[in-house]
Amino acid sequence: MSDIVDWVAVDWGTSNLRAWGIAPDGTVALERSSAKGMGKLTRDQFPAALAELLEGVTGTRAGPLDVLICGMAGARQGWLEAPYLEAPTDLRALLLGAVQPEMPDSRFAPAILPGVCQKAGADNVMRGEETQLLGLAALHPGFSGIVCMPGTHSKWASLAGTHIESFSTAMTGELYEVLRTHSVLRHSLSGDLDGPGRTEGFAIGARTGLDHPEQLLGNLFQVRASALLSGRQPDWCAGYLSGLLIGTEIGSNRHLIGEDPVPLVGAAGLCGLYTQVLGMIGATGVPQDTTKVVLAGLKAARSYAA
Amino acid sequence: MSDIVDWVAVDWGTSNLRAWGIAPDGTVALERSSAKGMGKLTRDQFPAALAELLEGVTGTRAGPLDVLICGMAGARQGWLEAPYLEAPTDLRALLLGAVQPEMPDSRFAPAILPGVCQKAGADNVMRGEETQLLGLAALHPGFSGIVCMPGTHSKWASLAGTHIESFSTAMTGELYEVLRTHSVLRHSLSGDLDGPGRTEGFAIGARTGLDHPEQLLGNLFQVRASALLSGRQPDWCAGYLSGLLIGTEIGSNRHLIGEDPVPLVGAAGLCGLYTQVLGMIGATGVPQDTTKVVLAGLKAARSYAA
Repeated sequence: MSDIVDWVAVDWGTSNLRAWGIAPDGTVALERSSAKGMGKLTRDQFPAALAELLEGVTGTRAGPLDVLICGMAGARQGWLEAPYLEAPTDLRALLLGAVQPEMPDSRFAPAILPGVCQKAGADNVMRGEETQLLGLAALHPGFSGIVCMPGTHSKWASLAGTHIESFSTAMTGELYEVLRTHSVLRHSLSGDLDGPGRTEGFAIGARTGLDHPEQLLGNLFQVRASALLSGRQPDWCAGYLSGLLIGTEIGSNRHLIGEDPVPLVGAAGLCGLYTQVLGMIGATGVPQDTTKVVLAGLKAARSYAA
Repeated sequence: MSDIVDWVAVDWGTSNLRAWGIAPDGTVALERSSAKGMGKLTRDQFPAALAELLEGVTGTRAGPLDVLICGMAGARQGWLEAPYLEAPTDLRALLLGAVQPEMPDSRFAPAILPGVCQKAGADNVMRGEETQLLGLAALHPGFSGIVCMPGTHSKWASLAGTHIESFSTAMTGELYEVLRTHSVLRHSLSGDLDGPGRTEGFAIGARTGLDHPEQLLGNLFQVRASALLSGRQPDWCAGYLSGLLIGTEIGSNRHLIGEDPVPLVGAAGLCGLYTQVLGMIGATGVPQDTTKVVLAGLKAARSYAA
């Protein structure tokens, strides 16, 4: 692997920073990552974090090396705000909306892709997922349907080729974390959360959420009541809470799920759980290789402006 | 007001401790309160907290003074666990289920009333609310219907006279607090939360929750998106979140709400908000005087064992 590349693709999220050096033939010549996610940096620390990550990397051509960035680096509290494109929109327009943050180190020419917002109907925002959606469109030409992107803030997007029609956000992952850590449910969720009861609790929680997404506020308390009355252990309770939240998310999006398989873009373990719950309503989840998807998205975004 | 009383009624909650000295004619002879709620005490601190509160109070008869306690003092992590009665049950049986904790100070003879649990269908528990329900039954003889008890963990109970048929718990108040304090929504909820935008945000959130209780996971993120895209201020966002959660709670219990007015037992401000949201679906909330209700419940509990 050479340190001489044509351009650099960067996924700069809240928690992590990842970069791929792309060779002239389009292959990945080098891959680097750091823990310097947007959430850990002040505005003036971004240039140094990028320069540090790309130490020793040079371009195949004279002049500064193009660095194309997607994700939270473009948020208001990031490096430089990249204004949202508004859905419905064609994601091939991403590069046109990119912004160029100042970079004291003149060896690099960074550009940050915009996120996508939605104002018709309900306000919504995404940042980073739009590039993954474009990557999905590039990897699966002609795909049209709903895409599920599980995570801290799960996204459900209606995609038709490179067009994003509409999307929503479910606070599933974050709700799991704040309830586990800060609510009364924490009493039932301290200890070994990965014991053998987790699988059973997950299945019961998922079924409950799928069948009654409108009862989430009530079903959450089942975690506590089941621990007090039925002696449910922390592993069972953690499984139930996880299943309940994922089941509720999928149950509330059931009207969007048809006969076609649903691509899942997110962490592998999480996508496995979503696949399991989708299967409980006869739907098929298809976990994607998220690294491949984001990289395809950055490549596609760059290609549409050439 | 005299310090000589027939017996003492005590509501010992998580946050507060309140006591009423009852005269032989049934009137309240004295009233005292302290911040020594169950949540702030270790097991061995309960006797001293009670003796301190009742300093100088003596009985009209020889021997120890009866002190009848309801609430979280009877929880597993309280003074002495008072095992639950199981619903459906007649709340006139509460005193039969009471437990006598050890009290080194022999001037007082405390007894703690049990909570009520539910195992048929979905596990559930209440502790303190059962006494309020018995009080409601005493104040409104012949009442039969659904009772809404807004709070950190809201209860919805089906009551027929002194019989509790079934109940559920919604984590509405606690969810508001953990989201406001610990989730990404905190960014949109810091500042003056009581400004003029709160009323409008509340009404919009409540309507959204009432119409789509199954979309809570998605609607929560509207707080963040509305702040980012529509410049919604913290007061509007706080109102929206509060309205959304209350609307979702009431929307998910809509099948229980008939033509009859719904008694509301809880903090006055909160009951006002619930009344407003119930009005949006043509229902009538009737806030109760919660102190009167709990006192009536303790009196009734005591009377049924005489």
